Amino acid sequence: MEHESDSHWGYVFKILKKSKKSQARAGVISTPHGLIHTPAFYPVGTKATVKGITPAQLNDMGIEAVLCNTYHLFLRPGDKVVKKFGGLHKFMNWPKPIITDSGGFQVFSLGLGMEHGCSKIIGKNQAGNRPAVASTDAKALADKKAMAGEGKFARITEDGVYFRSFLDGSKHFIGPEESMKIQENLGADIIFAFDECTSPYSDHEYTKEAMERTHRWAVRSLKAFRRGSSVVGRQLLFGIVQGGEFKDLRLESSKFIGAMDFDGFGIGGAFGKFKKNAKNELDWSVEHLPENKPKHLLGIGSVEDIVEAVRRGIDTFDCVTPTRLGRNGTALTEKGNLNMKSGKFALDKKPIEKGCGCYTCANFTRGYVRHLFQSGEMLAGILTTIHNLYFMEKLMKKIRKDILENRF
Amino acid sequence: MEHESDSHWGYVFKILKKSKKSQARAGVISTPHGLIHTPAFYPVGTKATVKGITPAQLNDMGIEAVLCNTYHLFLRPGDKVVKKFGGLHKFMNWPKPIITDSGGFQVFSLGLGMEHGCSKIIGKNQAGNRPAVASTDAKALADKKAMAGEGKFARITEDGVYFRSFLDGSKHFIGPEESMKIQENLGADIIFAFDECTSPYSDHEYTKEAMERTHRWAVRSLKAFRRGSSVVGRQLLFGIVQGGEFKDLRLESSKFIGAMDFDGFGIGGAFGKFKKNAKNELDWSVEHLPENKPKHLLGIGSVEDIVEAVRRGIDTFDCVTPTRLGRNGTALTEKGNLNMKSGKFALDKKPIEKGCGCYTCANFTRGYVRHLFQSGEMLAGILTTIHNLYFMEKLMKKIRKDILENRF
Repeated sequence: MEHESDSHWGYVFKILKKSKKSQARAGVISTPHGLIHTPAFYPVGTKATVKGITPAQLNDMGIEAVLCNTYHLFLRPGDKVVKKFGGLHKFMNWPKPIITDSGGFQVFSLGLGMEHGCSKIIGKNQAGNRPAVASTDAKALADKKAMAGEGKFARITEDGVYFRSFLDGSKHFIGPEESMKIQENLGADIIFAFDECTSPYSDHEYTKEAMERTHRWAVRSLKAFRRGSSVVGRQLLFGIVQGGEFKDLRLESSKFIGAMDFDGFGIGGAFGKFKKNAKNELDWSVEHLPENKPKHLLGIGSVEDIVEAVRRGIDTFDCVTPTRLGRNGTALTEKGNLNMKSGKFALDKKPIEKGCGCYTCANFTRGYVRHLFQSGEMLAGILTTIHNLYFMEKLMKKIRKDILENRF
Repeated sequence: MEHESDSHWGYVFKILKKSKKSQARAGVISTPHGLIHTPAFYPVGTKATVKGITPAQLNDMGIEAVLCNTYHLFLRPGDKVVKKFGGLHKFMNWPKPIITDSGGFQVFSLGLGMEHGCSKIIGKNQAGNRPAVASTDAKALADKKAMAGEGKFARITEDGVYFRSFLDGSKHFIGPEESMKIQENLGADIIFAFDECTSPYSDHEYTKEAMERTHRWAVRSLKAFRRGSSVVGRQLLFGIVQGGEFKDLRLESSKFIGAMDFDGFGIGGAFGKFKKNAKNELDWSVEHLPENKPKHLLGIGSVEDIVEAVRRGIDTFDCVTPTRLGRNGTALTEKGNLNMKSGKFALDKKPIEKGCGCYTCANFTRGYVRHLFQSGEMLAGILTTIHNLYFMEKLMKKIRKDILENRF
């Protein structure tokens, strides 16, 4: 049992093989709805659906688990509604493992009412509170400036976060206890402690303050989780390491969160903005986490980042990128991204990627997919998303195989 | 061989059973890409895709054939491009029978650059030409008035129709010979003679003029078809009966087209606008058509209309309604249409239709589908379209079974 993390229903995580050259490992996470073979990538089904893809198609691709967003489902249809349908698995007809995030990230990033990539910006408003604003473009930055003075979109207190719905502006509050209750109602297999994800633009002072609050929220999350019903007892709770770009804070967070009795751990933060430092941040983040527990890197999904993170001991990933790129016309291949809208594919009879075993590549040409995009057809995004998710699944299977066969 | 219509590769149409109480019959159409069991409904895949649905999903529903639109494919990606991909079957990965319309209907109805339902309006412009304008709403009518004076969007001559692309306004011409060539390039199993579909607002004089032109075009279509390559030889050509709402014209057209050596027949016209008279129009249209050849009613797809038409000897149907309604939130059921966006379904755990065997009803609740529509998710339209197409397929199977078992 050396490499196993036990739980009350058997094991949570079993390491099957460790790489000799790095921290990489291949393992299995055991959940009430089945196994997740790691390293694994979770497609994101924000609103209880992986956009444009049926559960049958996900299953055909060999996908074992999906991640849904607590914030979106809390607002619509509401976690209590999902509970009435018997939880997320029954609601969305996905009988295999489901993961939900804590809701924290979106509370901050969508408080302003915008979709965004992986960044957000923290500033101070007049009242001394710290509104968190999502931003990927100049417009968002401008909106932030306009709204920061009001401080109404997201207000962080010791209790939790007051925020407005990105749907209708209605007022809501989520703290650690609320996040646990919402995630209990949603009923995912793996849930996350409530955290505050700071921005790459945050300074050391604020990042430290937010990290310490996240630690206190972690204690409260774990406490609320333990107090839960038997349904909760069957869920796995992961704690989240924060600390921004700062070595001392990352190490401190790793030590604090890693010492707690979580079933696994998530690494939070906006790594995308600091490519150079990201590897260090990740090294510091996992430094004090117990080796025998599963580690999830939140919101990261590029091939390069995944390979680097697996080397550092990360087991699981989630990101909207493969699905979002697919819908918008970009196909992932081993030779780089393809713009499927390009006229150069008009007469191309090859599949998106030669040798790919996905439904799209087995049955359709680049020329046809290009025609569908040009014609604004739904099937364009569907077929490209299928390819991209299969590509990610194939990538993870290869990484896993390489680890198991000592080739990673 | 009493009830069979022979062709050079076996039979085109075999009548297996005739109803004793009506003209209804159950049969089989034999095409190079397989059999079509009639009565049958063809889902419409306008741009070489049934919107949002993969060929695998269509196949799972038991669908045997789809109809694509010549006009759209001529403009994009172009029939020559489709030919380079080996024809429509390979292009869209649908190995079963495909039908293409003649392009005539859309040339008239989309000349103005708008999608529409089943109507169009004929008026005279200053030059004495007769522009044909599609219209389903007031805006389209206003546009018609604005553009009628120019007569630039669609100009009908004895040769054929000059029109502008609804995509980019570019100028094009399609006559009977062009339509045959385009449909040969597309390579569908069943193709249609080039025709002019008059509007319910057309008077007797104009309808007669258009019908006579359609007859001359039918002769030219058949001639061009016969002249074609061996690929054409494997296609089936259907002639189209027109004549508007007028008894004498419908009977005349039925006689003229019915006497020609087509493999089958289509009944054209805008029946939707004249419910009361539609049954008579249909009776007149089929009056002189040979009993042993297949008959297709163009663009009709409501349950009521299909049942009435099958009674009058119609074998096959096509219509965008089931897919369009599905995408827009309306589910077809035996108890009538359901608005899946309605709040009354928010907590409804029942499937869209009890007892339905479609993928959607077997796996998802009304509440989930409603959530998807409310959230603007692609899967909403996909799941409802799947249900609607399955519903139509089930309806046709029931009608067929009833005929075969003398219960229709």
